[in-house]
Amino acid sequence: MKLASVNAGRDGQLVVVSNDLSKMVTADGIANTLQQALDNWAETAPKLAALHAKLESGDVEGQAFDQTAVASPLPRAFQWADGSAYVNHVELVRKARNAEMPESFWTDPLMYQGGSDSFLAPRAPIVMPQSEGFGIDFEAEIAVITDDVPMGVSPEDALGHIKLIMLVNDVSLRGLIPGELAKGFGFFQSKPSSAFSPVCVTPDALGSAWEAGKVHLPLVSHLNGDMFGKPEAGVDMTFDFGRLVAHAARTRPLCAGTIIGSGTVSNKLDGGPGKPVKEGGVGYSCIAEIRMIETIQDGKPSTPFMQFGDRIQIEMFDADGKSIFGQIDQTVQQG
Amino acid sequence: MKLASVNAGRDGQLVVVSNDLSKMVTADGIANTLQQALDNWAETAPKLAALHAKLESGDVEGQAFDQTAVASPLPRAFQWADGSAYVNHVELVRKARNAEMPESFWTDPLMYQGGSDSFLAPRAPIVMPQSEGFGIDFEAEIAVITDDVPMGVSPEDALGHIKLIMLVNDVSLRGLIPGELAKGFGFFQSKPSSAFSPVCVTPDALGSAWEAGKVHLPLVSHLNGDMFGKPEAGVDMTFDFGRLVAHAARTRPLCAGTIIGSGTVSNKLDGGPGKPVKEGGVGYSCIAEIRMIETIQDGKPSTPFMQFGDRIQIEMFDADGKSIFGQIDQTVQQG
Repeated sequence: MKLASVNAGRDGQLVVVSNDLSKMVTADGIANTLQQALDNWAETAPKLAALHAKLESGDVEGQAFDQTAVASPLPRAFQWADGSAYVNHVELVRKARNAEMPESFWTDPLMYQGGSDSFLAPRAPIVMPQSEGFGIDFEAEIAVITDDVPMGVSPEDALGHIKLIMLVNDVSLRGLIPGELAKGFGFFQSKPSSAFSPVCVTPDALGSAWEAGKVHLPLVSHLNGDMFGKPEAGVDMTFDFGRLVAHAARTRPLCAGTIIGSGTVSNKLDGGPGKPVKEGGVGYSCIAEIRMIETIQDGKPSTPFMQFGDRIQIEMFDADGKSIFGQIDQTVQQG
Repeated sequence: MKLASVNAGRDGQLVVVSNDLSKMVTADGIANTLQQALDNWAETAPKLAALHAKLESGDVEGQAFDQTAVASPLPRAFQWADGSAYVNHVELVRKARNAEMPESFWTDPLMYQGGSDSFLAPRAPIVMPQSEGFGIDFEAEIAVITDDVPMGVSPEDALGHIKLIMLVNDVSLRGLIPGELAKGFGFFQSKPSSAFSPVCVTPDALGSAWEAGKVHLPLVSHLNGDMFGKPEAGVDMTFDFGRLVAHAARTRPLCAGTIIGSGTVSNKLDGGPGKPVKEGGVGYSCIAEIRMIETIQDGKPSTPFMQFGDRIQIEMFDADGKSIFGQIDQTVQQG
């Protein structure tokens, strides 16, 4: 099934969405918000699935679903932790800031605690006080939402706690990262509010594309209308989502509604960095990566970071070319 | 006024507490939970204050308040960000892990994004799978709760967004910190669930002890029944809470219910590190600090980190010796 949160109050109004994203029906009487549904998932999920079946069959008529009228599925969450499962990306970004990557990164997941109190809607602008020096970048990723996860869960058992899947634009301020990481406490100001896809879906809605804790489909990003990346999310993902959830839960339990991200999706090409889409490659899921390739090739980057007015669209399509999660579509604005 | 969250469901039941912590009355009809109250603070705060006045005057009888029957004021929160305002502490802890402290730390606040989805109750055990190698430590701190804070708020304006104040035990796993910080993304597994004081209070409840964004009272910690620290929270706090809130809000707005911590409270003595309480000093608010002093004096630390069965109590008293926030009282347990 597919779920979304229509704009309403701070936490939205939970709606069940049809597979083709054309219709929706409010989850009245089941749960008012997605967090409420997740707080009691064992009871609410079957009811939501039954309502979804009725919407699909036409037993419930529903209303038109409007991707511009929704918040992120969890408009605010109690936890957002982002992994870096595509170690290829980590290696490139580190190179770009002249930082070495320890070998252990291939065996021990990297993860940071993100701010989860003020997510952007999927179609909301990315409002920043300045672009100069901030190095505004998008990061196209996949994220999962868990139910309650006990401390010390195994990677295998963690897979069973993954209840919903969605896309995320993990906005990053590349200009602020080196100084902030040098302080030693991780990201803070360099990771402003993230935006998630209009719709989140249960793993079964992905069919065979969800396998072994990975989504085996390309993640498509368009920058200012041009295809920027379409890497396969199931390829080069060193740590599957079961492993990432278990990493997060090593020393504390995770509350229902915890969001765990994959990190920027990135594919290698012949063991090295990939090529831009216009050169026949699968491209990239963030600007920092192409700038690194440019630096390797030309001695300096030529693709600028996002400026005011620049637009990023992130989407994923099923085997029939239909949008699964709806589209993240954001423009950078001064404010 | 003073507020607490009696154990009930995931988010507790909001109660108004008498100044002497003896009585409480549920906030029925005003807000069910503290988060609900904060989501609409301009409307709920005057009503809660009126109820508090009635409880104080005896117009409302109330029930007995039991510190063992409450969750943390926000049992889970949308944001917990912890500063390191007592730069003296940061300098000592860095020395203890042979890491240098940049001069900029005296002018640019250090802050990490903490996990906020599963706080411990003030009297709940600190359950850990192992003590050996984990280096289980307490950190006694002060924390504030804000209402909605706009992006880019000034430190001066940020002060007006501080609505509630409480104490926190920011549990740290010192054994995991060096490896985790070396990865560059900050704390994650090394910062398990934190616990907050039984009661949070409005700034006016502190009277003249709340001044210029600092709490001017000693923060008292007992380890296994012995006084371990009583540093003055208003002294050596390089960044006041207005500055810390503004730092957190530089590149994104903060949602109502955001918790910002002070970092471990620490006082210098004659320009150098302080002395233990038993030697006539004000002691320390974490074990790491005394271990550093021991290393300086004896070449190696002698005070062990917390073992299973060890107990930490954290409290703050007003000028008349009365407990302001109630007591954090936690024992480390294997689980």
